[in-house]
Amino acid sequence: MEIDTGRRGPFWDMLAGRTPPPPAAVLLGWELVAVDPERGTIEVAFEAGERFVNPVGVIQGGFLAAMLDDTLGPALVATLPEDQFAPTLDLHVQFLRPARPGRLVGRGRVVQRGREVCFLAGELIGADGRTVAVATATVKVQTVR
Amino acid sequence: MEIDTGRRGPFWDMLAGRTPPPPAAVLLGWELVAVDPERGTIEVAFEAGERFVNPVGVIQGGFLAAMLDDTLGPALVATLPEDQFAPTLDLHVQFLRPARPGRLVGRGRVVQRGREVCFLAGELIGADGRTVAVATATVKVQTVR
Repeated sequence: MEIDTGRRGPFWDMLAGRTPPPPAAVLLGWELVAVDPERGTIEVAFEAGERFVNPVGVIQGGFLAAMLDDTLGPALVATLPEDQFAPTLDLHVQFLRPARPGRLVGRGRVVQRGREVCFLAGELIGADGRTVAVATATVKVQTVR
Repeated sequence: MEIDTGRRGPFWDMLAGRTPPPPAAVLLGWELVAVDPERGTIEVAFEAGERFVNPVGVIQGGFLAAMLDDTLGPALVATLPEDQFAPTLDLHVQFLRPARPGRLVGRGRVVQRGREVCFLAGELIGADGRTVAVATATVKVQTVR
């Protein structure tokens, strides 16, 4: 997709290379597929490596939670001005089926945008097109310096 | 702590070195502090590295969720025989305060042990002794080959 390099804010500054990508996103192999800040929706992809697996060879649920946090959060952060960020207060994940190492697609959306508190939701989809996990999150918009 | 190297099961085989530690645990710097399978409690520690941080320099919430998943799960897995494992169905995390990179201690417990479905809870504690996040999880005991 084409990036609006003139747009400012933590999300856009990172995409345009003005700020480095956060280490957590790098570790998860985070990649933007599509974003619509007006609708509050985003699609991202992750590279779920072998190093995320649990003793039975599937991606440890917590890393799917980390990917979902990095899906839902950016749906909102893409809408924020330069001096704001939105820490997650609460994250709830349901693990529908095992996820194997490989590419996973995350779809996130802003369900309700409050002045401070926002409600987010999304899902993580495996290579076969089936949803592996769904999540909701509550985040709080904060002004940072 | 002293490890009961004679005890079998996925948790004890890993501690005794009969099976390799899962990559997800290695990545999180997972370390056992204490475990009481009779009471269904565990204390573990993690090394929350700089690579887990988000754009504002604190540990991305999802990685705290991954640590909590690797705290609550082992509280139960330590009680299971060799041929059983317990995938997480559902994980709910509340993020009480920001967590900086460094050592974090996880305390997990089995709240209710069903024949198949088990309810787990726990928390993650920062270097200053304050709780940074709390979690509950629902897991399902499965027989694996």
